[in-house]
Amino acid sequence: MVKVYLDELSMAEFKKRVEEDVIVMLPVGAVEAHGTHLPLCTDSIQPEYVAERVAERTGAIIAPPLRYGYCSTLKNHPGTISISVEALRAFVYEILSELVRNGLRKIVVLSGHAGGNHMGALALAAKDIVEKHGIDILVLSDYYIAYDIKHMDLPEDDGHAGFVETSRVMAIRPDLVGTPKEYVAPSFPKFKILDNPQDYVPTGVMGDPKGANPEVGKAINDYIIDELSKLIQESFR
Amino acid sequence: MVKVYLDELSMAEFKKRVEEDVIVMLPVGAVEAHGTHLPLCTDSIQPEYVAERVAERTGAIIAPPLRYGYCSTLKNHPGTISISVEALRAFVYEILSELVRNGLRKIVVLSGHAGGNHMGALALAAKDIVEKHGIDILVLSDYYIAYDIKHMDLPEDDGHAGFVETSRVMAIRPDLVGTPKEYVAPSFPKFKILDNPQDYVPTGVMGDPKGANPEVGKAINDYIIDELSKLIQESFR
Amino acid sequence: MVKVYLDELSMAEFKKRVEEDVIVMLPVGAVEAHGTHLPLCTDSIQPEYVAERVAERTGAIIAPPLRYGYCSTLKNHPGTISISVEALRAFVYEILSELVRNGLRKIVVLSGHAGGNHMGALALAAKDIVEKHGIDILVLSDYYIAYDIKHMDLPEDDGHAGFVETSRVMAIRPDLVGTPKEYVAPSFPKFKILDNPQDYVPTGVMGDPKGANPEVGKAINDYIIDELSKLIQESFR
Amino acid sequence: MVKVYLDELSMAEFKKRVEEDVIVMLPVGAVEAHGTHLPLCTDSIQPEYVAERVAERTGAIIAPPLRYGYCSTLKNHPGTISISVEALRAFVYEILSELVRNGLRKIVVLSGHAGGNHMGALALAAKDIVEKHGIDILVLSDYYIAYDIKHMDLPEDDGHAGFVETSRVMAIRPDLVGTPKEYVAPSFPKFKILDNPQDYVPTGVMGDPKGANPEVGKAINDYIIDELSKLIQESFR
Amino acid sequence: MVKVYLDELSMAEFKKRVEEDVIVMLPVGAVEAHGTHLPLCTDSIQPEYVAERVAERTGAIIAPPLRYGYCSTLKNHPGTISISVEALRAFVYEILSELVRNGLRKIVVLSGHAGGNHMGALALAAKDIVEKHGIDILVLSDYYIAYDIKHMDLPEDDGHAGFVETSRVMAIRPDLVGTPKEYVAPSFPKFKILDNPQDYVPTGVMGDPKGANPEVGKAINDYIIDELSKLIQESFR
Amino acid sequence: MVKVYLDELSMAEFKKRVEEDVIVMLPVGAVEAHGTHLPLCTDSIQPEYVAERVAERTGAIIAPPLRYGYCSTLKNHPGTISISVEALRAFVYEILSELVRNGLRKIVVLSGHAGGNHMGALALAAKDIVEKHGIDILVLSDYYIAYDIKHMDLPEDDGHAGFVETSRVMAIRPDLVGTPKEYVAPSFPKFKILDNPQDYVPTGVMGDPKGANPEVGKAINDYIIDELSKLIQESFR
Repeated sequence: MVKVYLDELSMAEFKKRVEEDVIVMLPVGAVEAHGTHLPLCTDSIQPEYVAERVAERTGAIIAPPLRYGYCSTLKNHPGTISISVEALRAFVYEILSELVRNGLRKIVVLSGHAGGNHMGALALAAKDIVEKHGIDILVLSDYYIAYDIKHMDLPEDDGHAGFVETSRVMAIRPDLVGTPKEYVAPSFPKFKILDNPQDYVPTGVMGDPKGANPEVGKAINDYIIDELSKLIQESFR
Repeated sequence: MVKVYLDELSMAEFKKRVEEDVIVMLPVGAVEAHGTHLPLCTDSIQPEYVAERVAERTGAIIAPPLRYGYCSTLKNHPGTISISVEALRAFVYEILSELVRNGLRKIVVLSGHAGGNHMGALALAAKDIVEKHGIDILVLSDYYIAYDIKHMDLPEDDGHAGFVETSRVMAIRPDLVGTPKEYVAPSFPKFKILDNPQDYVPTGVMGDPKGANPEVGKAINDYIIDELSKLIQESFR
Repeated sequence: MVKVYLDELSMAEFKKRVEEDVIVMLPVGAVEAHGTHLPLCTDSIQPEYVAERVAERTGAIIAPPLRYGYCSTLKNHPGTISISVEALRAFVYEILSELVRNGLRKIVVLSGHAGGNHMGALALAAKDIVEKHGIDILVLSDYYIAYDIKHMDLPEDDGHAGFVETSRVMAIRPDLVGTPKEYVAPSFPKFKILDNPQDYVPTGVMGDPKGANPEVGKAINDYIIDELSKLIQESFR
Repeated sequence: MVKVYLDELSMAEFKKRVEEDVIVMLPVGAVEAHGTHLPLCTDSIQPEYVAERVAERTGAIIAPPLRYGYCSTLKNHPGTISISVEALRAFVYEILSELVRNGLRKIVVLSGHAGGNHMGALALAAKDIVEKHGIDILVLSDYYIAYDIKHMDLPEDDGHAGFVETSRVMAIRPDLVGTPKEYVAPSFPKFKILDNPQDYVPTGVMGDPKGANPEVGKAINDYIIDELSKLIQESFR
Repeated sequence: MVKVYLDELSMAEFKKRVEEDVIVMLPVGAVEAHGTHLPLCTDSIQPEYVAERVAERTGAIIAPPLRYGYCSTLKNHPGTISISVEALRAFVYEILSELVRNGLRKIVVLSGHAGGNHMGALALAAKDIVEKHGIDILVLSDYYIAYDIKHMDLPEDDGHAGFVETSRVMAIRPDLVGTPKEYVAPSFPKFKILDNPQDYVPTGVMGDPKGANPEVGKAINDYIIDELSKLIQESFR
Repeated sequence: MVKVYLDELSMAEFKKRVEEDVIVMLPVGAVEAHGTHLPLCTDSIQPEYVAERVAERTGAIIAPPLRYGYCSTLKNHPGTISISVEALRAFVYEILSELVRNGLRKIVVLSGHAGGNHMGALALAAKDIVEKHGIDILVLSDYYIAYDIKHMDLPEDDGHAGFVETSRVMAIRPDLVGTPKEYVAPSFPKFKILDNPQDYVPTGVMGDPKGANPEVGKAINDYIIDELSKLIQESFR
């Protein structure tokens, strides 16, 4: 069986893969409240699942996933572990820097969490590497692809722990999915940086999970895997 | 089945465990060359295995493992991904800080990698939390316990990727263990901070793996699990 | 005449305004290439113009505008002066911190530049203040309001130095607007952090300025001024 | 009309000026209490006025003024907005760094505020650039020139918001000048770093403004403009 | 014999002195070129000598001297060891912070080196402590007192390694003083931050040492010791 | 008499020593409680004494000793002045960096304090220099050599302020040594980062000083001086 995880290789096997100019993916997740029906690892298991399938298909390898990210709106909900953008950016910078030092030139950062400043931390870390080493790095969330799906009839205002996310996790780790509560849409004051964002979304859910099902979840996951596989292969020709 | 991983809990389940004053363990590893016979994840899979068993036995939960650490001597070997002590310390500080903010008061940082400045980064992160919040935190390597074993006849000068480590990994992930090469003991110049430490230990091995076997590995692992379970329970009575 | 600029007040006049619980706006701009037909101060003069009109209408005062921001895509075009997100965030944090120390509790950060990580720097600076002092802060770009306009028939894919921006500047500083060149839409590789973004948009324009005119510009500006005035008054009741 | 402000240029006009090896001035001010008779922008409008005149005379351009600085003695007076020396230095460093990246080699930092550590922040920022790029940078306060005036009969112990400063502002923005109060000279304890410097100078004035008048102010301003124009032209031959 | 050095005390003796509310002095020096006739420790031995005499007279104790400082103009001369202002400030901050944590409330920082940004680093470190703990701290150079001497007929334009400094060192450590070379006054370009300041003062001397003698040196030292003793006693009544 | 201290040299003498490729030693100490029988400078005077003797024997010179270090366990005892590892590392980095800039290539950092994270700070500072400049640096504590002594019958569990240390200080500065109290061995909880380590070792002593005497102290000191002299000469051939 082919090993997809970078750190399951020995130093000799790793050296060989570098010489083959292998693509490496770094999955980044978060520990974040996703209502009472989804686990805290929701943003981690999705990109890791995607990365494993993409690796099998493209021959890429996967650096040890980083299951910590920066969370803003849900920070004060039980179980959220939010890393400051500085610490996150610095840590990811060092991982990327070491991958490059090891000779890897085709790098993909794939985040399950898609918050603006979280993605910003990843992009800025990558930007520093890009400017220093003259390579390009892909930085994206699998949700960038999911939200772009046109051929399926997905709900418009769906979001955090909603229909798409619940369906996707149902297809990956059904044992971790519980019964969603009745949905109440949050209503945040416009453009306000809040000290208590949790008061505006007490359920920790920002999208109606009603009707979520593993079949739809699988279809979405498969679409993402297809698209990402193509994207990676085109990007690093 | 009881969930041992913190982030497999939902926010509601997590809240309940906090109210029960649960113990939480943070496994820390490294991506580091361990010769040609052991995988780069050697320092990660050992503490994670130990943590899982200790969690099952004590009811503790496990925060998402951090599989990146600071490596010094082996930094320039293929596959080593070394995070600077500042970035490592800052990142671990934030994880611990968030655990405490969530109400957790019984924290164990368990590292498979045992390098001095790596452990220092973890200890200093914990120290900052300890001084700020007035709690105590356990910070140790499973190797602190392994190297303390008196009742088994383990080799004296054993070290990185040597007899003990090879045996332990054989007992945990035999599929990742290859055949060790003939051992050549490294000979570092005394007290020197070197620009090229790799030249003094080209094989990436600092202990003779000859005779390593899964039975001894299992016995060592079991001993560590026993001792750590006891230690944790006594420490956080 | 009522002074709208905070620093045109004397220390005694300032003290009085603080006692009246005055609203303060901080305009943030950028020095950024905007094609050959718009000046480098394009992102500065728009929010400053808006802030002045909103101040006249609401009685708010305006802190000295910061005409420097973080630019990513256009960084390598002639004349762009990009401040790192760390330095920008730190500087804005200190301004906000001092406003709060002076007793001001109703703060609006209004940026003419709307890049993601630029806005992130402002939001993170505000977030730190919000968490420390328990107040709320408005952070927005006037373009958030402009892009939300439904009642006017504005082009869909408009952007940097395009129809809306050119029209708005025509209405504010017609003397600084030249003749736009024929538009070529940029085509960036998807999700890539690039070392040479300028190669994909050599003209520095990301929206077709054809047909831009001061009448439309004035209508957009007026709409933003109306909306922002209302928003501010509702937000800090 | 020739544009004196750098950011009123388009990217094409800017490029042309760089090719002509243009001199660029960065005015730095402060938001600082200057008694009840002078505005908080006193330290900003003076160097900006000087820079505009010098630009007209020498063909230099002016980067967007930075109206924030580090204030120590007057920090706790109403209206003072003091930026830490670190944040100030970092921000100015980035501006200078970007000017150099854009090809500018003749840079003048002109500060209206002349506090020791404020000027130190500017000088250290410039020093870092100078050591990195091998160019020289002029860093000065217009008050360095004002205090050197020998041919006019200016008061000896004049200082902050006193005779010279009041006169100069009268000549620049008479609408912002009020009636000075009776002067009481401050008396600071020698060499002491104080927690409450404001108690030793409650009026925020450190020089007797009595007799200040716009004619003297104009003469001083003109002298500074002359001297600075000469200095710049000699310095960057 | 009474011990004047803080760290010659045992922990018990130290505790007793703290209970007596003892004054503590921190001498700060530099390793800096002082021509060919004075040693690199010139800026260290002067304040240490002064501090010892003041301690004997006032009962103050002396924290371990810090013989490293920030040097600008003489940085590139042989033997100068210049610490960045950040590192210097951070280090001195920590010393002061620890003195305060130990219960000391009467602190004097006495620097033999008097460069503007060096003194700024000390003052800013002290300022942070002052603002945090509500105590006052004296920060000065013994040269502030030396340059204030009116009753002796000292040369006007004297400076670094010149008449006063040479005389003072002759009185303290005559064994370290050599024969001065013929003096050539340096001539720096006005207000310029230079990449090569050493070229403008190749001898490392900025004041004519001709006629320097130990008798004058002793008189100056004695005057400084008198003045500082009085100042300290008045400042911390 | 040959000068052993770097900063007693003039700039000309220093230049000559650099041309001779001289070895430079940097003694690092600490201000730390050592029971009631030893002074706070215990960790400073030992390496300084050793360095002086080694310098006399090998022709090395000594950079100004840094008598401040990072203390953990004894931090809360009276008189301990602990510098954070960041500030310590940064400061030592700058000293080393400047030594190298001055042309010195043979550097020894000799610390009397031997705490893990203190030594880590020194080693990391040196590592940064080593990686940047491609030289090797010796970093050690004189206690590394002392604890290695086999030919003398020294107590096994000796430590901080115990038999060896008391004897050594007796041989160096007998005037600073008082009568030890009856020894009580500390008992720290295993692997715990403590908020109150002082409660577990109230006497500040971690080794029985009973029987300590200057003769043994001298023998140990002489042994260290011999070994270090040899080590240095072999290391920098």
